[in-house]
Amino acid sequence: MLNISDKLHKLPVSPTRQLVPLADAAIARGTKVYKLNIGQPDIDSPEEALNALRTIEDKLFPYTNSAGLMEFRKKLVEYYKKHDIEVGVESVIATLGGTEAVQMAMLICANQGDEILIPEPFYANYATFAANYDQVIVPVPSDIEHNFGLPPIEEFVRRITPRTKAILICNPNNPTGYLYTEEEMQRLGELAKQYNLYLISDEVYREFCYDGRKHISALSLKGVEENVIVVDSVSKRFSMCGVRLGNIVSRNKEVMKGAMKIAQSRLSVPYLAQRVAIAAFDAPQEYYDNVVAEYTSRRNCLVGELNKIEGVYSPMPQGAFYTVARFPVDDCHKFACWLLEEFSYKGATVQLAPARGFYATDGMGAQEARLAYVVGEEELKAACEILREALKVYPGRL
Amino acid sequence: MLNISDKLHKLPVSPTRQLVPLADAAIARGTKVYKLNIGQPDIDSPEEALNALRTIEDKLFPYTNSAGLMEFRKKLVEYYKKHDIEVGVESVIATLGGTEAVQMAMLICANQGDEILIPEPFYANYATFAANYDQVIVPVPSDIEHNFGLPPIEEFVRRITPRTKAILICNPNNPTGYLYTEEEMQRLGELAKQYNLYLISDEVYREFCYDGRKHISALSLKGVEENVIVVDSVSKRFSMCGVRLGNIVSRNKEVMKGAMKIAQSRLSVPYLAQRVAIAAFDAPQEYYDNVVAEYTSRRNCLVGELNKIEGVYSPMPQGAFYTVARFPVDDCHKFACWLLEEFSYKGATVQLAPARGFYATDGMGAQEARLAYVVGEEELKAACEILREALKVYPGRL
Repeated sequence: MLNISDKLHKLPVSPTRQLVPLADAAIARGTKVYKLNIGQPDIDSPEEALNALRTIEDKLFPYTNSAGLMEFRKKLVEYYKKHDIEVGVESVIATLGGTEAVQMAMLICANQGDEILIPEPFYANYATFAANYDQVIVPVPSDIEHNFGLPPIEEFVRRITPRTKAILICNPNNPTGYLYTEEEMQRLGELAKQYNLYLISDEVYREFCYDGRKHISALSLKGVEENVIVVDSVSKRFSMCGVRLGNIVSRNKEVMKGAMKIAQSRLSVPYLAQRVAIAAFDAPQEYYDNVVAEYTSRRNCLVGELNKIEGVYSPMPQGAFYTVARFPVDDCHKFACWLLEEFSYKGATVQLAPARGFYATDGMGAQEARLAYVVGEEELKAACEILREALKVYPGRL
Repeated sequence: MLNISDKLHKLPVSPTRQLVPLADAAIARGTKVYKLNIGQPDIDSPEEALNALRTIEDKLFPYTNSAGLMEFRKKLVEYYKKHDIEVGVESVIATLGGTEAVQMAMLICANQGDEILIPEPFYANYATFAANYDQVIVPVPSDIEHNFGLPPIEEFVRRITPRTKAILICNPNNPTGYLYTEEEMQRLGELAKQYNLYLISDEVYREFCYDGRKHISALSLKGVEENVIVVDSVSKRFSMCGVRLGNIVSRNKEVMKGAMKIAQSRLSVPYLAQRVAIAAFDAPQEYYDNVVAEYTSRRNCLVGELNKIEGVYSPMPQGAFYTVARFPVDDCHKFACWLLEEFSYKGATVQLAPARGFYATDGMGAQEARLAYVVGEEELKAACEILREALKVYPGRL
């Protein structure tokens, strides 16, 4: 037998992907599937970006600098400045989506066996990357009863060991949509400073803040400039997940030296993506405002409809485009499979992302699922109607 | 002090990148630098690809399937079929350049501490990836006197241990330009079969074969279908290194299952790249023929000029667009630095890639450098003239 590495066997499969074969089978049977399982924005990219594609005159497509085109990095610097964050181009490197930026941050900060504190539930791929690097994720549970707000700092402190190297947060949060307050961010900054930890802040949803709430970037925290590493991406911001372009930001020179070393080993980020993204940053404020208005109204719709269903509870998230809701079922994974395999209402069903995969602690999140509101309100309503009807007949209903 | 991981400290820096700051400084001083150090094709991409860009009508750019667009995978299957290689779409997954395909192959085959046999000199990033995965590269020396042909099979055999999991080759070879013969490929296949090893074959330069020589893909070997993993890319083939699109090919279902698991963790490959590449595969045979004719003539020019310089020796490579030449100097790294820092002739100098970085065995390749012929013949001649003049006065001349 040829060897298949242990590491590969251990790599977890993303909870948003697990049910894809069941959904495909449902679709093949002629059932319409409302896909609330994946964070794939459906809003148009900025006109500026779409037009830029048509003006590309290159006759060939060479590697760009491993750190990205200077023009792209300068656009990022301008963008942060607009948000009162002062960083120089030397603090910004382009990456293959936010995905590579997280991987870089983890690889730079921690050795094999080192520990990273992460509030749970958390974006499931963090666990995949940790498994890849043989790092240990130490989850700090947050709680649907407290709207998945930051766990008490004592809960972080009592998990710190000599092997703890970083705290990793996602703000606004995927999967919960929770937006950390200024006070919470400051507490995290102080914790990082006090225990000499990196604070890795995944801020790819930074533009998606609702109810007039302001996003507090880890880059705006004072006194922890050396500790902070920010992960960012144009994927969600400009509805261009498919171009694969993100960036890492840190004022820590050693971190950026490390990021550059990793960047050089994969040579280049996509050139066409950079051209499109450079143009997207010229979108007027109106573009962002319209997007936020649209998502706010969808969020209100989805959360409103969910909470009308007997036994279902969803907090009101203030960021990103997800909510984690609790369902009156034995197990949300079973429920999600059953929805795809055995249920339909008016010829349609719903695909959920069971929340267990967003938890590192065994048994947590069994009654929860993540729902993304990246479809229109009519579809959200139809999906909630299906969920309501499904819960009337689901055999594992509590 | 904040931690910087040991792994990062250990990551080697590519020999093609090491001299970039010196070259930049030379350029800043007003010196023209002939960059023979990097494999960045300068030939136009196919018209079909350039036109495809202008016809993209999407309003947003979503993730594609983690395995790539079905249309792209089908194009690859057609392409291989044209070359008498029968594989199904299930055996092909799109990757972030050839780079990711190599990483996937290494991660699938081998655990930490496992060994991979590679003829040296070899593409330096293989060492970076191995360092990243804590795998051990066991070099099998090839030799400029034998034109860097496949080392005797006994040299592989005597390095096989219970931890050996794979043989990794690059064919045609980067850095040497060596094209493995059918007999050599068969010997490698038998070796893989006999010792139950994977045969990872990096074939990104497969279109660049000269003197009427045919490329023998590892995929065409009989009886080792389960062992073979091929790394491929559109980067060099269509002069689109910057789009970041490659692919992995294997008939081994477990390998492809593993590749898909890794693919899912990075979500998607670039959408725009796929659209451009799909169209590029419609280029007529004439496109490939013209490219090969152009590189053949450049190769003849470069190798001819190099061998005219007293004390310099270059074999005649039959593939890719590189040669590794031997120089009559104390140390090619010093020579390459000196060229950039202290020498110019008619206001110009040359950037070489010192070959030491392509060897894992300490001390080997000290008198060798890799030169890429991805510039026109006039420039190649001018660069060789500079090298000839430089060798007359270089203090470390032997």
